[in-house]
Amino acid sequence: MKDFTWTPRTDLALEAREMLSRKVREDIPGVVVETVEEEDVVITTVNITNAEAERIMGKGQGKYVTIEAQGLRDKNTPLQEKIMKKLAEELVGMVELAKNATVLIIGLGNRNVTPDALGPRAVEKIVVTRHLQDMLSPELKGGVRSVCAIAPGVLGITGMETVEIVQGIVSKVKPDLVIAIDALAAASSRRVLTTVQLANTGISPGSGVGNKRFGLTAQSLGAPVIAIGVPTVVHASTIAIDTIDTLQEHAPFARYFKSMEHLSDNDRKMIVSQVLPEVLGDLMVTPKEVDRFIEDIGVLIAGGINQAIHPHIDYENIYNYLH
Amino acid sequence: MKDFTWTPRTDLALEAREMLSRKVREDIPGVVVETVEEEDVVITTVNITNAEAERIMGKGQGKYVTIEAQGLRDKNTPLQEKIMKKLAEELVGMVELAKNATVLIIGLGNRNVTPDALGPRAVEKIVVTRHLQDMLSPELKGGVRSVCAIAPGVLGITGMETVEIVQGIVSKVKPDLVIAIDALAAASSRRVLTTVQLANTGISPGSGVGNKRFGLTAQSLGAPVIAIGVPTVVHASTIAIDTIDTLQEHAPFARYFKSMEHLSDNDRKMIVSQVLPEVLGDLMVTPKEVDRFIEDIGVLIAGGINQAIHPHIDYENIYNYLH
Amino acid sequence: MKDFTWTPRTDLALEAREMLSRKVREDIPGVVVETVEEEDVVITTVNITNAEAERIMGKGQGKYVTIEAQGLRDKNTPLQEKIMKKLAEELVGMVELAKNATVLIIGLGNRNVTPDALGPRAVEKIVVTRHLQDMLSPELKGGVRSVCAIAPGVLGITGMETVEIVQGIVSKVKPDLVIAIDALAAASSRRVLTTVQLANTGISPGSGVGNKRFGLTAQSLGAPVIAIGVPTVVHASTIAIDTIDTLQEHAPFARYFKSMEHLSDNDRKMIVSQVLPEVLGDLMVTPKEVDRFIEDIGVLIAGGINQAIHPHIDYENIYNYLH
Amino acid sequence: MKDFTWTPRTDLALEAREMLSRKVREDIPGVVVETVEEEDVVITTVNITNAEAERIMGKGQGKYVTIEAQGLRDKNTPLQEKIMKKLAEELVGMVELAKNATVLIIGLGNRNVTPDALGPRAVEKIVVTRHLQDMLSPELKGGVRSVCAIAPGVLGITGMETVEIVQGIVSKVKPDLVIAIDALAAASSRRVLTTVQLANTGISPGSGVGNKRFGLTAQSLGAPVIAIGVPTVVHASTIAIDTIDTLQEHAPFARYFKSMEHLSDNDRKMIVSQVLPEVLGDLMVTPKEVDRFIEDIGVLIAGGINQAIHPHIDYENIYNYLH
Repeated sequence: MKDFTWTPRTDLALEAREMLSRKVREDIPGVVVETVEEEDVVITTVNITNAEAERIMGKGQGKYVTIEAQGLRDKNTPLQEKIMKKLAEELVGMVELAKNATVLIIGLGNRNVTPDALGPRAVEKIVVTRHLQDMLSPELKGGVRSVCAIAPGVLGITGMETVEIVQGIVSKVKPDLVIAIDALAAASSRRVLTTVQLANTGISPGSGVGNKRFGLTAQSLGAPVIAIGVPTVVHASTIAIDTIDTLQEHAPFARYFKSMEHLSDNDRKMIVSQVLPEVLGDLMVTPKEVDRFIEDIGVLIAGGINQAIHPHIDYENIYNYLH
Repeated sequence: MKDFTWTPRTDLALEAREMLSRKVREDIPGVVVETVEEEDVVITTVNITNAEAERIMGKGQGKYVTIEAQGLRDKNTPLQEKIMKKLAEELVGMVELAKNATVLIIGLGNRNVTPDALGPRAVEKIVVTRHLQDMLSPELKGGVRSVCAIAPGVLGITGMETVEIVQGIVSKVKPDLVIAIDALAAASSRRVLTTVQLANTGISPGSGVGNKRFGLTAQSLGAPVIAIGVPTVVHASTIAIDTIDTLQEHAPFARYFKSMEHLSDNDRKMIVSQVLPEVLGDLMVTPKEVDRFIEDIGVLIAGGINQAIHPHIDYENIYNYLH
Repeated sequence: MKDFTWTPRTDLALEAREMLSRKVREDIPGVVVETVEEEDVVITTVNITNAEAERIMGKGQGKYVTIEAQGLRDKNTPLQEKIMKKLAEELVGMVELAKNATVLIIGLGNRNVTPDALGPRAVEKIVVTRHLQDMLSPELKGGVRSVCAIAPGVLGITGMETVEIVQGIVSKVKPDLVIAIDALAAASSRRVLTTVQLANTGISPGSGVGNKRFGLTAQSLGAPVIAIGVPTVVHASTIAIDTIDTLQEHAPFARYFKSMEHLSDNDRKMIVSQVLPEVLGDLMVTPKEVDRFIEDIGVLIAGGINQAIHPHIDYENIYNYLH
Repeated sequence: MKDFTWTPRTDLALEAREMLSRKVREDIPGVVVETVEEEDVVITTVNITNAEAERIMGKGQGKYVTIEAQGLRDKNTPLQEKIMKKLAEELVGMVELAKNATVLIIGLGNRNVTPDALGPRAVEKIVVTRHLQDMLSPELKGGVRSVCAIAPGVLGITGMETVEIVQGIVSKVKPDLVIAIDALAAASSRRVLTTVQLANTGISPGSGVGNKRFGLTAQSLGAPVIAIGVPTVVHASTIAIDTIDTLQEHAPFARYFKSMEHLSDNDRKMIVSQVLPEVLGDLMVTPKEVDRFIEDIGVLIAGGINQAIHPHIDYENIYNYLH
């Protein structure tokens, strides 16, 4: 597979940790994990606090919050609203914003490739206000920060690295915060379209569903960057690797094997490359109803951002902007 | 997986035969296979001629023609036009049509689920003429048969079985031929969006990408039915099974196994169900650029049908209807 | 203009009456009008009760209910929900439905021509249940009637008259009620996308935005037909005629005219045909935001129908199906 | 009407001139007009050469080339290819480009409002090459200039003036030429979707279908700007004004009027505002098939630009990128 990379198979810090062997996982000194479970939601915070932890995890230093709710794939408006609020709360907890701050929202990904279109779809639902600042009444101004938003398109369509476009815009708009929304790849199919990850690290080269070689980070943009991502696919290689792991781990199959514990990473890679020859370019595994799920979760992400940035607008009014 | 069915993993007769063990494959008396290879196209005809062959192949008696061209996934207009013509020729060879025949084209599948939308997209490009018959000049009438077309939608959206809708329409329109266009599932990812299958058997219950429990056949409709299909996905289970097969078949991995030849179908099924828990409903594996591929191949299918049905319209004019 | 018809310029019975001269209007014995005004909604019922009234009005005998709310063009969720409920109430008042009735919903119009796409868009939001009847628990069955729905496409795309397709489907499904949803033309631009008309007359030849020459009526289908329509355009000719009328009716311009009261219908028609030469085929006047308005009002129509047919599902649950 | 502006009613320099009284028209010293007529195409060049001409015409100084072909609204591939070539020739004639020049294409307008979506649609078909420069073989490099492209979205959606976004991008990309594609408003319905205008003036505040208050000009961007526009709508006010003009100009109606030659511009404006009250926001007049026309003419514009910029790629290859 053209862009096949063995590690990481996931854009989620949570999964990067799960994929380590138990022994390694419990011994990394620089990783702090905290989990809060409710009836239908699990919120996990992973803090990567030093360079060694960064190396082992394959994720940059910073704070990663994962909000998981299996029910999101059912049509369940109350749960969607609950997760929207959780997202708003976590977002507020991640950055301090002055009342008169300007926020730039970037919707990453290709709007014409459904599983990669989460960013552009979410951006369409953002309550954009920067151009209205002069028209707002004084009492509204308190609750309505200056927000602008763009879905710049992907390299193959624009001929420009996303970071070039965003740097150009940042140089004119001078935002106090950049929020980048992106579709991610997960290692486990049950996290697809059920999980939202926030990270205060920005977006690093090589992550995301598409082929994004740039970084949108505080360093490249000169403003803090929060990344909000949702896994929309698992790579086909994940299915192959999961199959091998299942063979190894499940007792009923043990009788077939002389020894699987010695199956080297290199041999795994060979098997995967046998199973997934290069013919299809980017093969992806995604649920059949991905069109509808992307629509729903785009509304959820936008709603959470809207609530976090414009806290004094009541929820009913925010909701009006979303449909 | 909800609708998981062990056999067949493919809607292509060609692949159903490939999946048999060599010994079985070469011994089925009622299956006649013929292959014509050109530089960039392979055309394979599979004739299933008796009940025993039908049982072993898991496909109904009849003629299946498969046109394969790996180049179709590249942007290659001359190859697309060549395959369009091959499709027209095969279609003409499959059925005899009177000059004044009426043809009803059915675009199966869900237009809102991209990999299932091939039928509805192709139908949009069909040159529909039934309503113009009274307006055609006598010299045009010779080359323009009466064509009508509909994409009726899927059961979950209409609440009606497709066969009910089509039977109702057939009772009013009384076509001499029905052509049904559908998205298929393949066993091999390299056949996805590179292969067109024509079959004079119609469409049988259970085939297709979606959950289609009906049959569109000469028996149910009272008119001959030709099915034209293109694989747009492989099931995620295929990746898992391919992984197991790769482990078994490749010598470099042999040292890991005590014995794999005894891996029972039941154990395979267990492994697959471990790897693919039910969480995602219908997981599918499809190329990232599926939106564009579906558009392109929809034009190709419609173009082939248009040429076959309206032979005296020159190609240039046919092409005008397609974009 | 190709399909230019002088009378009627409107599909709304309400406007057909307004367009009559005051003298005629107040003297038609067979027309009964009733108006209920609330703060932000006006509901008008026009009953056409005999053949003479039918001739003068240019609309078939029957009951027409018009729900008008100027606020619908603003983003106003509470008003949309209110109109949704009014629509459900009027629908319930128009027809008696047994608990086990089957209802067939038809979305008329061309899904690829935005202002004509109201029917197809609304049908996508209908809660379809006919295929689930065997799966429903007994307590749910009381509130969930058997509903099926289709958007059959227009003549130019299918080659079939809509009435042929619908008759075919009706012969299989045998519904107790047919509801047809369509985009209409209004005479006045302020009624565009602010007004919903229900009629128990079905749909007669020649009405609607597109060129629909068929009738969907109790007579042609063998089941009662309720038509639900929303004006999405005014014809360009309306603008021209309004201009002439304004010139005539407004005192400030009187000095320009020798006499306008004698401007014959024929001369009006000549002026309009001068202003609107045939070059553009079907010219239409529509608001710029028509894409969004059609989406919103499609949800409203579907929501009203869902509430009327499935009364024992609580509103929250119905709403879940709509987004 | 909210954004009603009496003058100009058109974005076409050609029409701005036609709208002047014959006496004025033929006497403007600073306007040079040249017309070349072929069988099915008319090319008109309007040069506005001094400040006085600029004031009278209401269009900035510069060169405006209009390519008109009524046949473009029919499905006519050879004519489309011919106009594509004419557009490429005119574009090449308007600017000198070094072989290693970088060109930035801007698709203006709102992709979600069909008649305003020409720019975004055309941009999707541009052959983007800037990111491939390092990968091109030496022999290809001669014919493939560095092209990048973006559809930045409109103010109401991004919260940013288009000029801000484009300035930001220009500061990073440093193009030698900017080409801006936009949907225009015409005064005459027969020019809608049949006419392409090129101008070396860039785009000035207030023009275009939407509400674009910025200027994309050599002055604001620091690089030459060529504007390519196609009228996709006429304003509803145009229909009203045409009606008044028809009344005045056509002898058969003369008997109705005391005097129309004195109908002041102010009175005209009053009439129009009576006919078109503000209720609909932006009312527009557009052909019913606008969705398809926009798609076709987007391909044409992109094809013309591709040919002009990459002259040594043969036409067949260019065409491959377009569908």
